[in-house]
Amino acid sequence: MDKTRAYGGEVITYDRYTQDRAAIGSEIASARGLTLVPPYDDPDIIAGQGTLGLEVIGQAAQAGVTLDAMLICCSGGGLTAGCALAFEDGSPDTAIYSVEPAGFDDTARSLSAGYRLSNGKGKSSVCDAILIDKPGEMTFRINQPRLAGGLVVTDAEAMAAVAFAYDELKMVVEPGGAVALAAVLSGRINCQGRSVGVVCSGGNVDTATFISALS
Amino acid sequence: MDKTRAYGGEVITYDRYTQDRAAIGSEIASARGLTLVPPYDDPDIIAGQGTLGLEVIGQAAQAGVTLDAMLICCSGGGLTAGCALAFEDGSPDTAIYSVEPAGFDDTARSLSAGYRLSNGKGKSSVCDAILIDKPGEMTFRINQPRLAGGLVVTDAEAMAAVAFAYDELKMVVEPGGAVALAAVLSGRINCQGRSVGVVCSGGNVDTATFISALS
Repeated sequence: MDKTRAYGGEVITYDRYTQDRAAIGSEIASARGLTLVPPYDDPDIIAGQGTLGLEVIGQAAQAGVTLDAMLICCSGGGLTAGCALAFEDGSPDTAIYSVEPAGFDDTARSLSAGYRLSNGKGKSSVCDAILIDKPGEMTFRINQPRLAGGLVVTDAEAMAAVAFAYDELKMVVEPGGAVALAAVLSGRINCQGRSVGVVCSGGNVDTATFISALS
Repeated sequence: MDKTRAYGGEVITYDRYTQDRAAIGSEIASARGLTLVPPYDDPDIIAGQGTLGLEVIGQAAQAGVTLDAMLICCSGGGLTAGCALAFEDGSPDTAIYSVEPAGFDDTARSLSAGYRLSNGKGKSSVCDAILIDKPGEMTFRINQPRLAGGLVVTDAEAMAAVAFAYDELKMVVEPGGAVALAAVLSGRINCQGRSVGVVCSGGNVDTATFISALS
């Protein structure tokens, strides 16, 4: 919040557990005549997030590697959908997996069920950047036929991945941005003899949480 | 040390304050018939370290920028010498500065004096990766005519730069690798309206030291 304000942004807080941020955003946009930039359920946003997939495909090609699997931190599913589209075109043999924190595995369960399921109220996770009630309508339509499955990690595994990224990659990654790495580290997918891509996305972690991961 | 051992390396410890690591290395090399790879005073090592300069020059060109100044963390002076040579060729208008921690500012003082000076015994610094007694013979010969000067930062400024790199750049940087960034943050060089390149080099920091920087 401090950094958003430092960039000149106005921060309006809400209660994650009792209020609906999408509804609040729509209200503000219509009251002030503003254009809402949605976080995932929008063709342009999905396309923009898909450029991460393009970069990974390009880097893998430069390294002479075809990825067997690609793991993507998943909230509303926009990054996953954009990357799934990019890989469908540029690396169609790569199996795409969403990764979510336990309790907020709406995409994993929705993929299994074949339709969008909610997580319901009353849960919490340290992966605060990727907590959502259910997959986006548009993103799920893109992801459903293109994903090999949805992986799920615990908060402890996400925190261990934050520590691993610090210790081995020298990167500061927030818990929600470390769930794909956590899925690899905790053996949620077989990496033996395979080339697996992992998204580490976002470093907006409170210092107390970061230190707790390191300790 | 743990990581070096994990890669299969043998670690031989010594007392930084009473023993001479170069002499120990030479003894081991001659006793075992090994080739010593020196950390800085060697043409191939300097050339290799200079590829960092080539990368920076290339990135600056891609960004359409000519750097006014380039700040380089300096110990024995190999990275500085390699970069100075690279910039002399590829970006001759860039002023090159070495940056050292207080108490171990041998290159800064040697540049002012015109000949190589020692730091002497009995000092310490949190910037353990870049503590040396005096500039290398070969590196100083390269650096002396090519550097605009030597900058010096305190341990507290280096630790603040570690925290800045964590908070703003999302990078894990060791104190010695953060001294060039510290020189900018603490106003050791005028950056107003200028393009200044900074080397952040090395993330081998103990977790207790890192947490102390963040706190």
